[in-house]
Amino acid sequence: MTVSDRWLLPDGVEDILPPLAGRIESLRRDVMDTCQRWGYQLVIPPLIEYLESLFTGTGHDLELQTFKLTDQLTGRMMGVRADMTPQAARIDAHTLGEEGITRLCYAGHVLHTRPRHMLTGRTPIQAGCELFGSASESADMEVISLMLETLRVAGLPRIHLDLAHVAIYESLVGEADFDRDTEASIFDAMARKSVPELDELLGECPEGSAGSRLRRLARVSGGPEALDEARQILSGASEALDSALDQLERVSRMLARDFPEISFGFDFCELRGYNYHTGLVFAAYVPGHGDSVAKGGRYDAIGSDFGRARPATGFSLDIRALVSLGERVVQRQGAIWAPADQDPALEGVISGLRLTEAVVRALPEDEGCDPATRGCNRQLVKRDGQWVVESLD
Amino acid sequence: MTVSDRWLLPDGVEDILPPLAGRIESLRRDVMDTCQRWGYQLVIPPLIEYLESLFTGTGHDLELQTFKLTDQLTGRMMGVRADMTPQAARIDAHTLGEEGITRLCYAGHVLHTRPRHMLTGRTPIQAGCELFGSASESADMEVISLMLETLRVAGLPRIHLDLAHVAIYESLVGEADFDRDTEASIFDAMARKSVPELDELLGECPEGSAGSRLRRLARVSGGPEALDEARQILSGASEALDSALDQLERVSRMLARDFPEISFGFDFCELRGYNYHTGLVFAAYVPGHGDSVAKGGRYDAIGSDFGRARPATGFSLDIRALVSLGERVVQRQGAIWAPADQDPALEGVISGLRLTEAVVRALPEDEGCDPATRGCNRQLVKRDGQWVVESLD
Repeated sequence: MTVSDRWLLPDGVEDILPPLAGRIESLRRDVMDTCQRWGYQLVIPPLIEYLESLFTGTGHDLELQTFKLTDQLTGRMMGVRADMTPQAARIDAHTLGEEGITRLCYAGHVLHTRPRHMLTGRTPIQAGCELFGSASESADMEVISLMLETLRVAGLPRIHLDLAHVAIYESLVGEADFDRDTEASIFDAMARKSVPELDELLGECPEGSAGSRLRRLARVSGGPEALDEARQILSGASEALDSALDQLERVSRMLARDFPEISFGFDFCELRGYNYHTGLVFAAYVPGHGDSVAKGGRYDAIGSDFGRARPATGFSLDIRALVSLGERVVQRQGAIWAPADQDPALEGVISGLRLTEAVVRALPEDEGCDPATRGCNRQLVKRDGQWVVESLD
Repeated sequence: MTVSDRWLLPDGVEDILPPLAGRIESLRRDVMDTCQRWGYQLVIPPLIEYLESLFTGTGHDLELQTFKLTDQLTGRMMGVRADMTPQAARIDAHTLGEEGITRLCYAGHVLHTRPRHMLTGRTPIQAGCELFGSASESADMEVISLMLETLRVAGLPRIHLDLAHVAIYESLVGEADFDRDTEASIFDAMARKSVPELDELLGECPEGSAGSRLRRLARVSGGPEALDEARQILSGASEALDSALDQLERVSRMLARDFPEISFGFDFCELRGYNYHTGLVFAAYVPGHGDSVAKGGRYDAIGSDFGRARPATGFSLDIRALVSLGERVVQRQGAIWAPADQDPALEGVISGLRLTEAVVRALPEDEGCDPATRGCNRQLVKRDGQWVVESLD
């Protein structure tokens, strides 16, 4: 390993430098403050846990995405968190154990063995909100509204929201009763939206069967007209499916009323990335970026896997990605340059200024340097025995 | 693994809950803001790196403290950062590569294979500042002053600062020219301050030799009188040692002048935890807590290991530990409870309030609950057709 190799970072891993780091910190604070103003309380889940806790109720995808470590103290396997939502569910179910409704928010690094998407790295900064203890549609609405509010705070333009309901796919697959291999192939083809594969897998299913409905449904996506089409395909299938479609319709009406600037659509077989979800799910997109910028939905099962059944819904997003995509203007005032003068009065002046301003103190090596290259736009100078701040322009 | 085991966390790993999580976030922000007002710019180093980058110039201790991972993309070994200071040095040396003085600050989780100290966990939240490009004593003074300022911000009472100089030990050991095993044993005994072991290892060294000076020096620590004692022990030894003692004296004079409320002392053979330091080092303590609450010092060698020699000094601290020890009062205003009323006017009122206040919206499951249990001290009620905020008391 030569000297020049030592600073190479692994793929999908990056140093975040000024001023980008400052913009990320600023958005992180604003997102957390927004969540707290909606009544969500901050928790800081641990970076590592035993694998059993991390994977309980979360499905296979998360397991593959998680870096594993050996605990030297016990010899047991631990993992670095790849998703903070199951951690929040564990905290709600056990550590807090409150009755009634609990609202939690969090922000922190997660780690992925491979990038989830071409556009994301392996160390996203995940932030999110989770609402536990309410199975009501009002809870779903609150979480969607809060997610859209945080995207507004991030300065994201022209958001498109995809709505889906995991129960639709689950219910049809359950009714069709495929063997395990077929079911896995269908899930896989559905997640990749591969219509030819689905035709091959489901083409023989008789008209009106669950398999045939699935195959037709995979072709349907888009605005309100898609909902009508889905109603036709699923008409007479089951009450559970009707109720899922009704819920999608009510949520879309709320969106049209409260967020008229946001476009939305339906995607009945959206499964990518919904590992542990059980009900209404949603994902926000912006033009020109193929991956979702925020997503979430209902997951009523994780809590019960931890021994305490709690309905739950929430969303999460990647602060790092939002900063690259958003058009947020962060006001940055330049710093004040202070000379390396030994005047004792200068110390007091600098202490005072630092209550509200950034002051960079010159060091011997700064002799002859241009303060503008140190991020300063003003300087402290002595005029008639008094220290005053003057513009550097 | 039973359900009740699933939520057990590994030793030294914890869930941080409200309201503690909020206090940690608040201190994290204030410490970062303080550093930025002193001209330090925020960077966000990655959570993982290749082992070679993480360990360059840092010594064996850090290697043992680092969790290792295999990179699935390349098969190379990576580590989860156990210390962010070497990362900042790498960023300064390569990623930024600026000429002149660079000031960086950072805050984030680090991970340790074992707790560094009985009192700390394995996932501290490290925050720190690093100043690159200045070999001057003013730089050391600035970093010490800034560290003491952040401890003031954290509300730490009665701080004691230990000052030491790594060059004293290094210079004496270099002069004595022990064999490698003896040198390792001496280092080990010195780090544990084991006087009997040092007597055994160094007892035969002739009077006036470097070994004899080391042995006498290990017994010396304390206030200004300790500095005089060290001067006697080291008198006539070398210019480098005189200059190290002079520097300790000048820094202590600055402290006495600028921080009269802080007690300080000297510890000439303090080596614990100084892996990569080369000059003046310092550690802050508070009564009743055996581990240092913040520490730092000069490390001029790491940059050159990355191929770019840069003098450097800095400090770091554990935000999590500071919050437990500090007496910081965080003002928390209670939230406002909003009923599950469908009145469209209520939506506007809540949006308006949320610009500055926390508002918790009632959900159907909240029927009959006491808003005080949800952190609220006020509520929205309709009086004469108008929504108003009323106290809950």
